[in-house]
Amino acid sequence: MKDGGRKQGVMTPCAACKLLRRRCAHDCVFAPYFPADEPHKFGSVHKVFGASNVNKMLQELPEHQRSDAVSSMVYEANARVRDPVYGCVGAISSLQQQVDVLQTQLAQAQAEVVHMKIHQSSSSSDQHQSSPSSENVYHLGSY
Amino acid sequence: MKDGGRKQGVMTPCAACKLLRRRCAHDCVFAPYFPADEPHKFGSVHKVFGASNVNKMLQELPEHQRSDAVSSMVYEANARVRDPVYGCVGAISSLQQQVDVLQTQLAQAQAEVVHMKIHQSSSSSDQHQSSPSSENVYHLGSY
Repeated sequence: MKDGGRKQGVMTPCAACKLLRRRCAHDCVFAPYFPADEPHKFGSVHKVFGASNVNKMLQELPEHQRSDAVSSMVYEANARVRDPVYGCVGAISSLQQQVDVLQTQLAQAQAEVVHMKIHQSSSSSDQHQSSPSSENVYHLGSY
Repeated sequence: MKDGGRKQGVMTPCAACKLLRRRCAHDCVFAPYFPADEPHKFGSVHKVFGASNVNKMLQELPEHQRSDAVSSMVYEANARVRDPVYGCVGAISSLQQQVDVLQTQLAQAQAEVVHMKIHQSSSSSDQHQSSPSSENVYHLGSY
């Protein structure tokens, strides 16, 4: 059977067509990305973006980019279902805070390294210049 | 006029009602968040989520959370218009990479600090033990 998969697909509609209660056509734009055995994937995308918007967005993209677009839409939709106020913008904002904290900690650690290097090189040059005597002599001399 | 703002609103519909070509009712759910002078704000939200989904999402939230929900939806919609494949998931993924890089750099800097502290304390104890200072005299005295 030359188009076995989709022929079978007509009998077993994809998750999108099943939810939308429509016939899953041979060239259904949803079928490659919303298989019948993953109904929740389309469920959240449909709830958040709406089937007709998802359809339109997919049609506007070349085929090789549609799978990534579906993945990102499913991620975004699930985030919005979990957090109806902030959706995945909540994740962006918390990652941005994490970046800020890490940048501050990194700057502190790097400053400490620089400080220690300066201290180390000055104490090693002190050591070179000030053998037992010189420092003591200096101290004694200052009395 | 006791309800001047919305009375005027009936004559100047909010950006959402203007785009949807419908009468902007006194209790329009969009009006407080999509003023007439910011038409693009509703434009992208409508394109990405669809007016009826936005309406439904707002209705499901208590009023004090709607403004934040609109801001995050506008942010998300603009990101999806700019990048139809990854939307704001692109920002999440690039922030996640930034966090990974910063965590590695921080771990390296902290390891360097620890290494230098160990080196410093071992070299200062070497110095204490080996230099003919007063401390050595004390040590000798204690024998």
